[in-house]
Order: sequence, then structure tokens, then C-alpha cells
Amino acid sequence: MILIDDIKKVLEVLKRRAFEHKGTPMIGRTHGIHAEPKTLGLVFTLWYDEMRRNLARMEKAKEIISIGKVSGAVGTFANVTPEVEEEACRILGIKPASISTQIVQRDIHAEFFLTLSIIASTIEKIAVEIRHFQRTEVLELEEPFSKGQKGSSAMPHKRNPVLSENLCGLSRLVRSYAVSALENIPLWHERDISHSSVERVIGPDGTILLDFMLSRLTYLLDGLQIYPENLEKNIWRTGGLVFSQKVLLKLVDKGFSREDAYAAVQRNAMRTWEEKEDFKELLLKDPQVSGAITPEELEECFNVKADLKNIDVIYERVFS
Amino acid sequence: MILIDDIKKVLEVLKRRAFEHKGTPMIGRTHGIHAEPKTLGLVFTLWYDEMRRNLARMEKAKEIISIGKVSGAVGTFANVTPEVEEEACRILGIKPASISTQIVQRDIHAEFFLTLSIIASTIEKIAVEIRHFQRTEVLELEEPFSKGQKGSSAMPHKRNPVLSENLCGLSRLVRSYAVSALENIPLWHERDISHSSVERVIGPDGTILLDFMLSRLTYLLDGLQIYPENLEKNIWRTGGLVFSQKVLLKLVDKGFSREDAYAAVQRNAMRTWEEKEDFKELLLKDPQVSGAITPEELEECFNVKADLKNIDVIYERVFS
Amino acid sequence: MILIDDIKKVLEVLKRRAFEHKGTPMIGRTHGIHAEPKTLGLVFTLWYDEMRRNLARMEKAKEIISIGKVSGAVGTFANVTPEVEEEACRILGIKPASISTQIVQRDIHAEFFLTLSIIASTIEKIAVEIRHFQRTEVLELEEPFSKGQKGSSAMPHKRNPVLSENLCGLSRLVRSYAVSALENIPLWHERDISHSSVERVIGPDGTILLDFMLSRLTYLLDGLQIYPENLEKNIWRTGGLVFSQKVLLKLVDKGFSREDAYAAVQRNAMRTWEEKEDFKELLLKDPQVSGAITPEELEECFNVKADLKNIDVIYERVFS
Amino acid sequence: MILIDDIKKVLEVLKRRAFEHKGTPMIGRTHGIHAEPKTLGLVFTLWYDEMRRNLARMEKAKEIISIGKVSGAVGTFANVTPEVEEEACRILGIKPASISTQIVQRDIHAEFFLTLSIIASTIEKIAVEIRHFQRTEVLELEEPFSKGQKGSSAMPHKRNPVLSENLCGLSRLVRSYAVSALENIPLWHERDISHSSVERVIGPDGTILLDFMLSRLTYLLDGLQIYPENLEKNIWRTGGLVFSQKVLLKLVDKGFSREDAYAAVQRNAMRTWEEKEDFKELLLKDPQVSGAITPEELEECFNVKADLKNIDVIYERVFS
Repeated sequence: MILIDDIKKVLEVLKRRAFEHKGTPMIGRTHGIHAEPKTLGLVFTLWYDEMRRNLARMEKAKEIISIGKVSGAVGTFANVTPEVEEEACRILGIKPASISTQIVQRDIHAEFFLTLSIIASTIEKIAVEIRHFQRTEVLELEEPFSKGQKGSSAMPHKRNPVLSENLCGLSRLVRSYAVSALENIPLWHERDISHSSVERVIGPDGTILLDFMLSRLTYLLDGLQIYPENLEKNIWRTGGLVFSQKVLLKLVDKGFSREDAYAAVQRNAMRTWEEKEDFKELLLKDPQVSGAITPEELEECFNVKADLKNIDVIYERVFS
Repeated sequence: MILIDDIKKVLEVLKRRAFEHKGTPMIGRTHGIHAEPKTLGLVFTLWYDEMRRNLARMEKAKEIISIGKVSGAVGTFANVTPEVEEEACRILGIKPASISTQIVQRDIHAEFFLTLSIIASTIEKIAVEIRHFQRTEVLELEEPFSKGQKGSSAMPHKRNPVLSENLCGLSRLVRSYAVSALENIPLWHERDISHSSVERVIGPDGTILLDFMLSRLTYLLDGLQIYPENLEKNIWRTGGLVFSQKVLLKLVDKGFSREDAYAAVQRNAMRTWEEKEDFKELLLKDPQVSGAITPEELEECFNVKADLKNIDVIYERVFS
Repeated sequence: MILIDDIKKVLEVLKRRAFEHKGTPMIGRTHGIHAEPKTLGLVFTLWYDEMRRNLARMEKAKEIISIGKVSGAVGTFANVTPEVEEEACRILGIKPASISTQIVQRDIHAEFFLTLSIIASTIEKIAVEIRHFQRTEVLELEEPFSKGQKGSSAMPHKRNPVLSENLCGLSRLVRSYAVSALENIPLWHERDISHSSVERVIGPDGTILLDFMLSRLTYLLDGLQIYPENLEKNIWRTGGLVFSQKVLLKLVDKGFSREDAYAAVQRNAMRTWEEKEDFKELLLKDPQVSGAITPEELEECFNVKADLKNIDVIYERVFS
Repeated sequence: MILIDDIKKVLEVLKRRAFEHKGTPMIGRTHGIHAEPKTLGLVFTLWYDEMRRNLARMEKAKEIISIGKVSGAVGTFANVTPEVEEEACRILGIKPASISTQIVQRDIHAEFFLTLSIIASTIEKIAVEIRHFQRTEVLELEEPFSKGQKGSSAMPHKRNPVLSENLCGLSRLVRSYAVSALENIPLWHERDISHSSVERVIGPDGTILLDFMLSRLTYLLDGLQIYPENLEKNIWRTGGLVFSQKVLLKLVDKGFSREDAYAAVQRNAMRTWEEKEDFKELLLKDPQVSGAITPEELEECFNVKADLKNIDVIYERVFS
């Protein structure tokens, strides 16, 4: 099945990227705000894990829709025998429906189209992320862009994440087919033909679009240009504030109540934020903090490697 | 899980109804037009088979959402160990996510809500069918209605299929949650909290509504009043036309070309239709037909039992 | 605009049909159950009124989308003057957007697609109604069907409402575009191009489908075969029960409490229903009823004309 | 009508903000990439213009749903006069439906809910934009945040745009109601009650949610903290590249072919981009460019004010 092969190709490139950048630090963001360091490899690993769920969904959906019926006008085998149905399905390599009317019931088709809609939404998630990463202020990576290729006609310096934007739009289309496919379920009696016009559109369009999307995604991920220096720079853009939690926990280790530790950290964090001073320097100068933590211990709190100590476990869980 | 128990109760009543009416003949309809005879039991069996697929879907969805994470602010286990996550999940009886960010990824939740939306659509399909069966001109069955219960205030003879209509409306609601759940998938970076307000509504509303719908459906199916005499009467409402295909095939058996057989059948069928004459009588009087088929053979063509000869096979496929 | 002309053609045929059948009695149905008499003309009038609202919606939508912009890469007129925009729009016969970014804002396009989705849903409503009217047990009207045309290949007597079923399916498609069009509204900053792929599909597909649907609807309504004898027969199918409310009100006129009147009517109504006896005859034989109402007064209660006395007012409201 | 007042309050604060920041320069972005300068005031003005369209939509929707009916069980005025309907509607301050069945037709309600869905999508658009502006790397503005307020419990320096994220989620909910409202249109005959359960949920939920969203939006816009120094800094973040189009046009003015001008600009733009050198300096050093443009002329190309020369026209169009 083409779509299954497509997903496998996405998985392949995601796995390669995940291992390439297993140790490439980057800043993790929640709410669009810098939180704590992670690695770029984890981003690819997360997508790999989700796309593997999509592979399982698609394999299940394929199995479910591989069904046929030759049971007559209302499904009673009045003028054809069940053996004919079994033989016809055997030849086609599908299973006979346990029971059918004039048609195979449409919950089966809906499950297939809903599967497409989830996969499309995962693709949109990846595409949105890439668009974020490529924005001028972030610029941690960029879509493939060949040297000779022109940028925007009006603004020659621009490299726009148009492939990712396109994937977001296409995702809206594939997602909308879910609604129609669900509305196709409540047909009248032994069948009415209202589902047919819907399926003639969303059948080819849904599968062709998803094939295109998965191929485009593979190309995109494969050729993604990554800027490790920007990834690094962004970690430190807030003057070290993203290490605040580790300082807080260290203070608690040293006997501070959580409230006191929080107050000490926030006091210096706020000053860093507002006056653009280096967080570590401020903490060193804060008597309450420096009275409790040695410079070496503080240094350790600002070491990205400490954040990444459990990455092997995650990789093992996902890839083994 | 309440919803799984709910589905099992629906299955139970459907199975009982299927066997009660295994041999109750009724007319099968395609496009809302009488086609060929079947049995009422087959209707329940069809719903049983679909609802059993829904049970499998829900069990799968339950397994998929039984997942947790305690992996820190961006999913790196920077300040908590994987062992803590494993232990916490073990206590809760769920599995740790292979990889997470600040949250479990929302394709997982979407799969759950899409499952609700399919089940709701199956319920709508059953409800639409009941509404058709109860309409005044058809009246093959009716929703449960207690003797003392008042009908419409203005029109005392009316018994309206309001439970089924209600289920159709509720299905629209549950189905609409699929769209929101899919839109929740593309969150930003390690999480944004936009999904939360959606889930606070569709989580409780979707599950409570479906619980209510399944319970109402069980009550409805359990107490469904069935009118076998109307089922029988409707089979013969078209003067025997619904047996036309068997006459056609018999003529072909007797050496007619398919075109000739079709012409002979349609000629008499049209007269039955337009002049309300009995189809069998007309065929007997048609020299071309009566020259080829004996009255006994023709009688056999109008025997409902012949339509039902393969029902055992279907029941065996579904229920064994 | 083609779609506006299409709607006008639907209106024209609906108006003609409404006046042709202004006085053709039929049974009104609520919940699919016979309620009180009305006329077939009222059905067409209702559709006319709704379709006229759709005409107004489409004219409004056309006005709203007739907008353009030539305001530069981010909408500031940095390298082009507002006069150029005004002139360009004047030539195209559209209005300049008061303010734009790189693009005209997508709430405007959404309003257009939502308008398509309402019109499609109205068409589905009409199509569902026709499918009900054509079902074997009702058969009050049928889709156009030429004499020579073959019915179902397997069942030669069948005339299936396949045009109406097709319209129901197409409505699901057009309706699904509403979701995508709404998701196109929240673009990023001065534009991202995610909306483009969506519009390249739903733009042509939405308008072409609706054009096709409106044309098919016009053909369908224009050639609708109407069976007045079946319309009449269905009014009386419940033995006169559909006049129960008028009997009830007459009893109240005669001094019965509403409760007593209701009890008297329901008592006889239930017997009519269960024993298939004529409702009027039963009422005549009921001493409590016949003691209060003369046979002439009762006769009046069963006169369809009384139900139709205010139809002129409705026609005047809608068509003048 | 509460929702209309809500929209007016949004408009009021947007207008105030638009004039406050009429002259506050910021970088315009297409595809998330820096394009050309604009002002923050234009952002508010754009939203104002769209929200004013929403006001018109809501006023129209209010007018359309202000309709009633007292026309009896099937809409024929069989047992009630049109005068009663007119009087009842007059008292309620609404218009009588020209024609009705047992109910007012649901295209009318759908139009109302679709209006809610557009407005919700506009709110999402604004909320998405604010989330972008607040992200750590951009930080041009922030949601209201009181001095004493705690940030994230784990990361004290974080100020998350949670109000905007919440608005995005709520928008998904309100938008999903559009689908259900459209599915409510094709009711059966003179009414079925399937729409009722839908409306009991989406009626209160849709209006209350939108009221909440509009109020939250007003609060958000009113207290939005704006950082002009960051707005300014971001304009220059690409070393002046965002003025490339003006250089290109100046070269064309000086007799360059568009291709030559493009080549000259792109050559230097690429070097700026890759080597982080100042674009203006590079152009000055480029003999082809400096041979055609004087330093003063070049200086003018890098003047934000030139980009803003037509802003008054836009403000006049929108606000007068």
C-alpha cells in the first residue's frame, strides 16, 4: 500500500535525523517561551514515535477496509451463494464481510478516512514546528533551499517555509474529509447512494493528497538545513534563565524551603529579565544564594549536559 | 470502563433481538424503495456486527489513551528519573509514554475522540432506521411507549420517535468534537495550552453524552415494539413486485436471454405498478411467461422462504 | 454571477410549483408521524422562502468578496500608491480593501464558503424530503423518470430517488469546506500561504459543485411527478385521526374542560389506532361526544378545507 | 444584545491601541520571515477593520434570528389566526416568519452559529498573533501580567501567553458548532426534534463562550504590554535586509533592468545573510551599486519613515 510505504519513508528519515542530532542541544519551549534545554534529536524522535503510531493506525485501517461482499441486492444471498462471495474475496485477497446489506457498512470507510485525518494532523504539527524554527528571529533550521533558487521576487533575502505552509493547508483539506466520512455512516435501510458522490471525491483526493503530503514531508525532513550555532545561541538568549529550575532544586537540596528557593531564584531571574544581566553572575553576587551554593555547584547547574543525561533511555524506549 | 460496558449492553440486547426475529420476514429497501425480502433479525445482526467493531475500536482506544508521563517540563527527565515515571504509571495501571514533551501527544487523544464520533454515527444510523420504521406509512415498529403515557398534547394519537430523534441530534454533537480533537494535535513546541479548554469541554461532554446515548439506545432496542403483521403487509404492498428478480432468474433458467427475461418481467411489473394489479396473476396471464414457467414454479418465486435460505450462514458468521 | 442565476432558476420553478399545488391537500408530518393536513403548495412555498434567504445571502457574499488590494508586500503602500489600488479595483469592478496585509483577510472568503455551506444544506433538506415522499410506502411524488428509462437492473419495478441522494452526498462535501475555510482565517502575521492550497481546491470544487447541485435541483423540481391520489389517500390512512385536534377544540368550544376533551378524543383515537376503525364513526357512537356535538359539526371537523383557510395569507406574505 | 456590546468594546480598545501606536514602527512578516517595515498601529487597525465586519455580521444575524411563529402544529394556522402570530411577535419585538412549519426553519439558526464561528476564528487569529509576538525570541509585546503574579511554578522567569492560548482552544469549540448547526438544517417534513438537543448545547455554550472570549480579548488588548525597543530592534535584526526592495526599486529608477537590479541586491543580501554584515555597508562597497546610487539616496532607502508615508490614508479609510 503506497501510503504505508510513504509513512515508512518518513520514519526512515526521521530515525536518521534523530540519531544525527541526538546530541545537538536546543532550547525546549512551552507556550512559545523558553523553558529548559533538550536536543534536536528528541524533536525528531518525538515525531518518529507519533508517526509510528500512524503507521500502526494505517496498517489497522488497511486491514479493516480489506473487505468485500457479494451477497445480493439486500445482503441475503438470495440469488448468490456465500461460497461465491468467499471465492471472489479470496481472489481479491480480501475478507468477506460477516454481514452486509447492498453494501459494506460505512463505519469501515469512516475509520479509514479518520486515519487519514490523524496522519494529516501529525504532518501539520511537524510543519507548524518547522515554520516556527525557520522564522527570522529563531532560525534554527530551514527548509531545503538550493543555492540557485530565487527567494521572494520582491525581497531577495527571504527564504519562506512554503512547503511547510502548504502542508498545513493540505492538512485542513484532509481533515475536513473526516466530517463527510462520518456523515456517510447513517445511510437509509439496505443502502442509499448518497455516500457515493462523497467517496468519489474524498477517496482519490484524500489518498492522493496524503501521498503527496508524506512525500513532501520526507523531502522536507531529508533536506532540512540545520543551524547548530543558532540552536546554541538561542539556549543562551535569556542570559541563562532556562537553568533556573536546576538552581532552585539545588537550593532545596541545600536545605532551602521550596518557597525560599523560589523567591531567591525569581528575584534574580526577574533582574536578569529586565536588566539583561547574566543570570549566573547575579546568582553569584546574591549573598543568600552564594552562601549556600559553591561556584562549582552553580556552574554545574548551567551545564546543558545535565539536562540530557536521560536521553539514552528515551532513545532506547523508542528505537529498540 | 463505563463506555465499554455500555457497548456490551447494546450488544447483548441486539443479539437477543436478532435471534428473536431471525425468522421474521420484512422487506429490504434500497434507496427507500422496496427491493427484496429479508428478515428483521438481519437488521439487528447488522447493527450487532457494526457495534462489535465499535467495541473493538473502543477497547483499542482505551488501551492507547492508558498512557502517562512524568518526564519533566520538556520531556527530558532532567529533574526526575524515568524510574519515577515507570513507578507512577505502574501505580495508575497505565503505560509510560515512550517519549513525551511537557505532555502526552494529542494524536492519542484524537484517536479516542474519533472513536467516540464513529460510535455516535453508528447510533445515529440505528436511530434513523428506527425513525423510518416508525413513520406512519411504514409502522413496522415503534419506540417503547407505556400505556398510560400521553402522546402529543395537540394530537393524542401520535407516538413520536423522540428518543431516536434525540440520538440523532446528540450524534451531531459528539461528531463535532472530532474536528476540535484533530485541531488539538498541532500544538506548538513542547506544548501550548490551547488544547486544554477544548478537552475540558469535549472530555466530559463527549463521554457523558456517549454514555447517555448508549444507555438510551439499549433501552430503546430492548423495548422496541415490533409489528410482525405490518412487516408482512409491507412485503406484499407492491403486489409481489419485490419477487421480480427471482422470476427473471427463473426465466433465464428456462432459456430466456437476460434481455428477453428482463423485458417480460418489466412489462408486467410496470402494469402491476400502474394498475395496482397482482404481479403473479399478471405473469400467469402473460403467454410468454406462462409458456415457460409452470404455476408451481411461479409460486415458488413468490415464496419469502427462498430469500431466507442463507440466513443461517450469516448468523453463524456473526455470532459464532 | 452564475450561482445567483442558478438560485433564481430554483426560485422560479419553486414559485410555479407552489401555485400549481396551492390547493393540493396533503398530510403534514411531524417526527415522521401524520399530524394535520396542509397542502403540497406550502411545501414548495417553504422551500421558496428559504431559497430566497439564500439568494440574499449569496448576493451579500458576492458583495463582500468583491474586494481587492494592491497595497504592497505588507499592506503599507510603501512602493505603490493607494491611487493605483483604487484604479486597479475600479477597472475590475470591485472595491479596494480598507486595509490589507499582503492579502485580503480570510474572514471575507470564509463568509463566502459558509454561504455555500448553508445553501448546500438547504438543498439537502429538499432532497431528503423528496426521498421521503418517494419511498414505496408514501409515494406522493417521484423524481423525473422517462418512460423508456430502465429502473434498477436487478429489480425492474424500482425507481430510485438517485438524484436526491446524490444531492445529499454533495451537500456533505460542500459543507465540509466550511471547516477548512474557517481554519484559513488565523494566518500568521502579514500572511502565510497555507490558505492557498485549501482555496485552490474548495474554490473551484465548492462553486462548481454548488452550480451543479442547483442545476440538478432545478431539473428535479421542474420534472417532479406528483401523485395527488396518493397525497389524498395518505391523509386518510389513519382513519381520520389527523383531525383529532379539531374535534378536541370543538369539544372545548362546547364546554368540555381541556382534560375531559382530551380524554374523550384519546379514548376514541386509541381505538381507531388499534382496531383500525374509522375515527369519525367511533366518535359518533361515543355518547359523551355525540351528546355534545351534532353529526354536522363533526363532519366539519373532518373537512380538509378548514385546515387550509389561511393559506392565502401565507402566500401573500411570501410572494407579494 | 450582549455579544454586540462585547464586540463594540473590542472595537473601542482596538481603536485606542491603533491610534496610540499609529507611528510605532515594527517589522512586517510574511511566512514568518521579515519582509518590510510597518507599524504596530496597522496591526490593531487591521483587527479593528475585521472586527467591524464581525459587528456587521452579528447585527445582521441578530436581525435574522429575531423571528417567531405561532402558526400551529404544521404551520397552516388551522387553529390559530395569523393575527395572533403577529400580535405575539409584536409583543416580543420580533418579526413573524413569512412561512413556518411546526418550527422556524433552521437555516436561520445556522446563519447565527456560523456568525459565531467566524468571530471566534477572528479571535483566534488575533490570539495566534499575540502568541507569536510574545515568544521569547520576538518579545515585542506581552499579555497583561501583574508585578506580584507568579510565573510558571517550575520556571520563575516564564510569562506564558496563556490567555491567548486559551482563546485559540475556545475558538476550536465555537467553530465546531458550525458543523452541527449546518447538520440541523435538513430536518424531516414539518419538523423532527433532532435539532433540539444540539441547540440546547450549542445555544448556551456558543453564546456564553463567545461572550467570555470577547471579554477576555478586550482585557487582553487593553492591558497588552508593548515593548517599542524590541519592535525597533527586530526591524534591524537582519542587518537592514528588509529594505532590499526599496534599494532594488531605486536601482531600477536609476536605469537598471529589473534583472540586474535584482542580481545586485540579492548578491549583497546573501552576503549580509550569511556573513552577518550590514546590508547598507555592503551596498556602499559594491561598485555597481555605489556607481548608481549616492550614499544619501541609499540612506533614504533605509528610512522606515518612507515605508510609512501612506499610513494616514489607511487610517482615514478605516476610521472615518
